[in-house]
Amino acid sequence: MLRKLIVLILAALPLLADEGMWMPQQVPRLADDLRKLGIQIDPARLSDLTGDPLGAVISLGGCTASFVSPDGLIVTNHHCAFGSIQHNSTPERDLIAGGFLARTREEELPAAPGTKVWVTTKTEDVTARMTGNIAGKTGDAARARLLDRREKELVAECEKTPGVRCSVSSFFEGSQYVRTTRSELTDVRLVYAPSEMIGDFGGEIDNFEWPRHTGDFAFYRAYAGGKPYKPAHWLKVSAGGVSEGDGVIVAGYPGRTFRYKTADEVRNYQEFVYPTNIRYLTDTMRIMEEAGKNNREVQIRNSARIESFANSLKNSQSVSEGFVKHHILDARREREERMDRVTRIRNPMLEEIAAANAEKFRTRERDLILDWITGRAAPMFIQAYTVARVATERPKPDIDRLAKYQERQWPALKQASVRAQRTMDPGSDRAILRYFVAEASKLPAAQRIQPVDDAVAAAGGIDPLISRLYDSTKIGSQEEREKMLGESAAQLRARGDAMIDFALALLPLLDAREERDLAWTGAMSRLRPRYFELLGHVEGNGRLYPDANSTLRLTFGRVAGYRPKDATWYTPQTSLRGVVEKEKGEEPFASPKALLAAASDPAKTRPYFDPELKDVPVNFLSTCDTTGGNSGSPTLNAKGELVGLLFDGNYESIDADFLFHEADTRSIHVDTQYMLWIMDAVDHANNLLRELGVEPRTR
Amino acid sequence: MLRKLIVLILAALPLLADEGMWMPQQVPRLADDLRKLGIQIDPARLSDLTGDPLGAVISLGGCTASFVSPDGLIVTNHHCAFGSIQHNSTPERDLIAGGFLARTREEELPAAPGTKVWVTTKTEDVTARMTGNIAGKTGDAARARLLDRREKELVAECEKTPGVRCSVSSFFEGSQYVRTTRSELTDVRLVYAPSEMIGDFGGEIDNFEWPRHTGDFAFYRAYAGGKPYKPAHWLKVSAGGVSEGDGVIVAGYPGRTFRYKTADEVRNYQEFVYPTNIRYLTDTMRIMEEAGKNNREVQIRNSARIESFANSLKNSQSVSEGFVKHHILDARREREERMDRVTRIRNPMLEEIAAANAEKFRTRERDLILDWITGRAAPMFIQAYTVARVATERPKPDIDRLAKYQERQWPALKQASVRAQRTMDPGSDRAILRYFVAEASKLPAAQRIQPVDDAVAAAGGIDPLISRLYDSTKIGSQEEREKMLGESAAQLRARGDAMIDFALALLPLLDAREERDLAWTGAMSRLRPRYFELLGHVEGNGRLYPDANSTLRLTFGRVAGYRPKDATWYTPQTSLRGVVEKEKGEEPFASPKALLAAASDPAKTRPYFDPELKDVPVNFLSTCDTTGGNSGSPTLNAKGELVGLLFDGNYESIDADFLFHEADTRSIHVDTQYMLWIMDAVDHANNLLRELGVEPRTR
Repeated sequence: MLRKLIVLILAALPLLADEGMWMPQQVPRLADDLRKLGIQIDPARLSDLTGDPLGAVISLGGCTASFVSPDGLIVTNHHCAFGSIQHNSTPERDLIAGGFLARTREEELPAAPGTKVWVTTKTEDVTARMTGNIAGKTGDAARARLLDRREKELVAECEKTPGVRCSVSSFFEGSQYVRTTRSELTDVRLVYAPSEMIGDFGGEIDNFEWPRHTGDFAFYRAYAGGKPYKPAHWLKVSAGGVSEGDGVIVAGYPGRTFRYKTADEVRNYQEFVYPTNIRYLTDTMRIMEEAGKNNREVQIRNSARIESFANSLKNSQSVSEGFVKHHILDARREREERMDRVTRIRNPMLEEIAAANAEKFRTRERDLILDWITGRAAPMFIQAYTVARVATERPKPDIDRLAKYQERQWPALKQASVRAQRTMDPGSDRAILRYFVAEASKLPAAQRIQPVDDAVAAAGGIDPLISRLYDSTKIGSQEEREKMLGESAAQLRARGDAMIDFALALLPLLDAREERDLAWTGAMSRLRPRYFELLGHVEGNGRLYPDANSTLRLTFGRVAGYRPKDATWYTPQTSLRGVVEKEKGEEPFASPKALLAAASDPAKTRPYFDPELKDVPVNFLSTCDTTGGNSGSPTLNAKGELVGLLFDGNYESIDADFLFHEADTRSIHVDTQYMLWIMDAVDHANNLLRELGVEPRTR
Repeated sequence: MLRKLIVLILAALPLLADEGMWMPQQVPRLADDLRKLGIQIDPARLSDLTGDPLGAVISLGGCTASFVSPDGLIVTNHHCAFGSIQHNSTPERDLIAGGFLARTREEELPAAPGTKVWVTTKTEDVTARMTGNIAGKTGDAARARLLDRREKELVAECEKTPGVRCSVSSFFEGSQYVRTTRSELTDVRLVYAPSEMIGDFGGEIDNFEWPRHTGDFAFYRAYAGGKPYKPAHWLKVSAGGVSEGDGVIVAGYPGRTFRYKTADEVRNYQEFVYPTNIRYLTDTMRIMEEAGKNNREVQIRNSARIESFANSLKNSQSVSEGFVKHHILDARREREERMDRVTRIRNPMLEEIAAANAEKFRTRERDLILDWITGRAAPMFIQAYTVARVATERPKPDIDRLAKYQERQWPALKQASVRAQRTMDPGSDRAILRYFVAEASKLPAAQRIQPVDDAVAAAGGIDPLISRLYDSTKIGSQEEREKMLGESAAQLRARGDAMIDFALALLPLLDAREERDLAWTGAMSRLRPRYFELLGHVEGNGRLYPDANSTLRLTFGRVAGYRPKDATWYTPQTSLRGVVEKEKGEEPFASPKALLAAASDPAKTRPYFDPELKDVPVNFLSTCDTTGGNSGSPTLNAKGELVGLLFDGNYESIDADFLFHEADTRSIHVDTQYMLWIMDAVDHANNLLRELGVEPRTR
C-alpha cells in the first residue's frame, strides 16, 4: 500500500531528465536538479575528484569499484571479480560454486594475473597542448598524426612519475582534451565472493532482464608494499535501504556511448554494423557449439568466448530493436534539422562530416571482416597477427609505433598471449577462420582483400589454404609464441610458418587502411568540435555532457519502475521471496541450501526487512544513465552513503548508448541490504561486516 | 494517474471472497456481498432463470452465449463459433482469415451441422424422486443402477414435450438433484465474425496468458420456423466501459470443477492422473507431428487434434504446477482435519470414501489406458469401439442402455462419426494405437488387459497385431462405417474385420469395469451428501456452492489486476496500443491492415477511448470464478448491462478448478468497447451495431 502511495506521489512530481554522464566538474551547475532529486550532499563535494566520496571510486579497467574501509577493502561486482575467483578455483576447491571467504588477511588469495586498481589522482586540461598551433597543418592525415604524437608525449611525460598510468582523453567531440593521472595498485587480493549461485543467480537467462535477483558483489583488498593500502577516502555503508522515488547517485567509469553520432553514422550502425555483427556472432557461436558437441574439452575451451559472444549478441539484438522502437535515426535527423535551422542552411560542416564518413563506409564490409579476423574471430590467428605486428612495429622509435604496441603496453600484450592459450581450440579456430576467408571471398570487386585472394589462389582454394595455415603453424604453442614475440620479421619469415606468413602478408593492406583512417580522424578532429558547438546553441550548453570515454563520471536519478509492455508495471525493487519463487533446483536458478534455509527463517530475514516490501530487498532499478564499464559502480543515497552496486541495465536500456529514453532506460543495482544479508545470514562474514562498520544483525 | 489512484482505493477496501459459481436461487442470500461490490441490480432478479437478464443467457453446449437483440441475435466467443466459420470457409472464400459479415438476413450462413442453442426454461428439484425410498437397497451397485434408471425416466418424461432437451444434474455432491428443461433451437446461422487475426490474435502463444489482446467474439442468429427467433429477454450493451475496481457479474454454463474432491482424490490427480496425461499428451502429439513431417495432408488431418491436445497439455501442466504452488493437497488435508475436529474422531465416512477410492485406484493405470484407447487416442479405433458398443447396446430396452447409447443420443453418435472422418489419418492412427498397446503390455500383473494380451499373443507381437488391425479394417470408410452402425454384433463378426473384432473383444472387460464403477458410484451417492453436510458445519453453509456441472451459474467479482511474479504488477485492462506493440507481421501476431490503419487514426480511436487508459480498451481481468464452458459468457456491469464476454482464464487460474485463490485467480474478458470498435472502425458492421442499439461513432 505504501508502495502504491509512493508511485502516486512520484507521478505527481514534475519529470526530471535523468540523462547525463557528467564530468565531476560539471556537477555544480546541476545544483537545482540535484535539489529536486532530494540530494543533500553538496554539489561542490561531488566535483572534487580526490575528495569524499569520489576519491573512493576506482577503476578496475572495464569495471568500477570502490574503497569501503580504511584498510583498502574494495567492493565491486561478482562478475568483475570472476576472473580472480576462477583463477583460484580447482576441482578440489571450487570457489565458483562454493564461494570464498578469507576469515583473516592471511587467507586472502592473489587476484588473477593482471588485476589492477587505478585510483584517479589528477585531471588536467591539456587542450592547448594538444591543439595549439595545429590549424595550419597541411592535410587531415598530418593533423591526426600530430595529435597522436602530442598525446603520446603527454602520456610519456606524465608516466615519468613511478606507479602511475596516464591517459589523454577527448571530451565533447574533441573540443576539450584532459590528461588523467591514476595511481596503479598491482597487488590485489580476493577477500570474499558469494557462491556463483548467488553472484550470478539467473545467469544468461536473466542477463539484462528485470525482475532480477542477483547478488552480484565481491570484495578485493588492495595492498601496497605488502601492507593493506590506505586509501584517502572510503565509502560508508548505509544502515537503511532505498524506497521508490529516492534520489540516487552513481559514480563510475562508463566505457563508450554514441550520443553524438550523426544521422549518417547512426544509419550505418543500424543498416550495416549491427545486422552484420549479429550474423557473425550467430554463425561463429554456432561453429563453436558444433565443435563442442560431445567434446567437453572443446566446450570448456570455447565457453568463455561463447558466453561473451552471447552477451554481445543479446546486446546487439536489443540495440537493433531499439533503433526501430525508439526511432533513434529520426531523433538524429530532427536534431540536425534543428541545427540547420540555426545556421539557416544545410550546414557545410555536417556535409563535410558526411562526406568523410561516406569515404570510410565505402569499404565497410571489407573493414568489418578485417576487424573480426585481426581481433575477434579465431584466437590462434589473432595471436599470429599480433606476433607479425610486434615484429614490424618494434624496430620503430617508441613514439612512432601504433599506441597498442608501445613499450608501455608490452606487459599487457604478453599477458594477453598467455591468457589466449586457454581459449584456443584448433578445430574451432580453423572453422571460424575458414568462415571469414569465405566471407572475404564474397566481397564485391571494389573491396577485395588482395592478400586473401592471393593466398586462396596459391593454395588452390579456401579449404587447402586453411589446411596449409593450420597444418604448418606453431602459433598454438605457448612456448613457441613467446619466442615469436621476440623475433624480427625476417626471423619469423625464416620459420616457414604459413599462418605467420599469411598474417605478415596482411600488414601492408592494414597499414594502408590505417593511413586512410588517419585522414578521417584528422577531419573529425577538425569538424566535430564545430558540430558540438552548434549543438550547444540548439540544445542548451548546460545540458550537454561528453560521450562516455572510460573517465570518471556521475549520473543522478531516482529509484523508479517502468512499463515494459501493455498492462504491465514493473515495480523498482525485488525481494527475497522472488529468489525463492525462481528457485528451480538447477542452474541458473539454484540457490545455495544455506540461502534457502536462511530465507525461510524469520529470525534471519526480519532484521533486514524493507518496511514497505516486508521482505529483504534484493535488487533495485533507477533512472541513472549508465553503460558498460559502470559495472561495480557504487550507488549512493542522498547523503552519499553506499546503498547499492550497479551491475546491469534493463533490456530496454541497451540502445540508450545511442539515445537515452526516460520512459524505460533503467539501471539495475544490487541492494546493499541484500549484500549485508548474504554476508550475515548466509555466509557469516562477520569479520568483513565489522570492517564495513556494520554490526551483524542475526545470530 | 487515475489508474494508480484506483489501485490505491481498491487496496484500501476490505477484501471480498470472489469465489463461487452460484446457482441462481442462491443469489438472494449473497445480497450483502453484492452491495459491497456495488451491484445495483436486485439479487432477486438474478435468481429468476427466465427473467431479465438470465433469460438471455443461453448454452451452445460447451460454450455460453447470450441474446442481444429482440430478433434472436446471439453473441459468443469467436472460438465458440469457430466450427461454423471453418465450415463455411473455402480456399476461394476464406472466412477464417477474412472474417465474415452478413449485411442482410439473406446473407447469413448456416452454422456448422449440429450447432444448437439451448435456452433454459425450467428447473425443478427432483431430489425426492431420485432418492426416495432408496436407502434400503441392497448394495451400492443396485443403488447406482436405480439412480441411473430414475434419472433416465425423469429425462424421458420431460422430453415428451417437443423441442426440449432435459437433464438431471446432481448438486452439492448428490445432496440435491435438479431437472433442467431447455428449449432447443436447431436453426442457427452465422451473422458476423471478425478475422481470425482479431478473434484469435495471439493464438496458442497467448492462450491462458495476460496481458491479452484478443477480439474473441462472433455473432449468430437463432431462427424458429424459418423466422428470427424472438427471445423473451436480451441483453443491453453498455455505452461505457469498465474501470479497475468495478463490480462485474458473469452468467454462464461452467462445465466441471473439483472443489469438493477429497484429499485422497486430489493426491491421485496430482501424483497419477495429471503426470500420466501429460506424458500421453506429449507422446501422442509427438507421434502426430512426426507423421505430418513433409506431408501437408496429414498435418491438416491432425491439426485440430494437435491443437486440442496442446491446449490440454498447457492446462495439465498449469494444474500440475498449481498443485505445488498453491499447496492444494495441504488445503484439502486441513479441510478434512477441520471436519475431523467437528466429529472429534477420524470420520468413518471419510474413511469409507477413501476405501472406495482405493479400490477404484487399484487399476488406475489400466483404466487410464482404456479411457485413452476407447475415447481419445486413435480416431479410427474409437469409431470401431463405438460401432461395437452400438451393436451390443441396441438390442437392450432403451432405458437399460448406457446413457450415451440411448435413442436420444443417436443423432449425436452419427454426427460424431461423420465429423471423425476429417481427423482420420491411418498412419498416425496406427502409430498411436501401437503406443497404447505397448503401454498396456507394460502394465503390472494385477492390471493386465487380457484381450490385449490375447490379441498380441495371437498375432505374434505388437507390430504384427497393429498391422493386422489396420490392414484388414474398413472402419476408415465413412460409407462402411454408416453401414456398421446399423449392424448387429453377429453381422459385425461376420465381416472378419480385425479391428472390429478387437473392439468387440474388449467389451466384456469394459462391462466388468462398468459394473465395478457402479459400486463406486453407488457408494459415493450414499457417502458424499454426508461429506457435504459435515463440510457445511465447518465452512459455513451459506458460503458453499455446488461444483460446476454445466448448469447455469452466476459469479461475482471485480475488475482487478494481480502480481504474477516479484516486482511485477499486471494492471487489469489492455489497450489498443498493446495490440500494435505485439504486431509482428506474422501469425499469431498479425493484425488486419484495416485494424492497423484504424488504430493509427485518432478520428477512429478517440470515440472509443477509455478516459483512464486514454486508448481503446481491449481485454480486461476480473476476479470472477469461471472455468471451461464459461467461454462466451456475458459479463455484466452493476446495472446488468453487457460490458464484456468472458473468453479465458489466466495461467495461474487453471488449477482453480481444484482451489480458488484470490490472489491470482483471474478471468479474462474481451471488452464490449473493443467489440464495438472493431465492428465500427474496422469492419463497418453498422447494421449490427444499430441492431444492438448502438449508433456508430466513427465516420
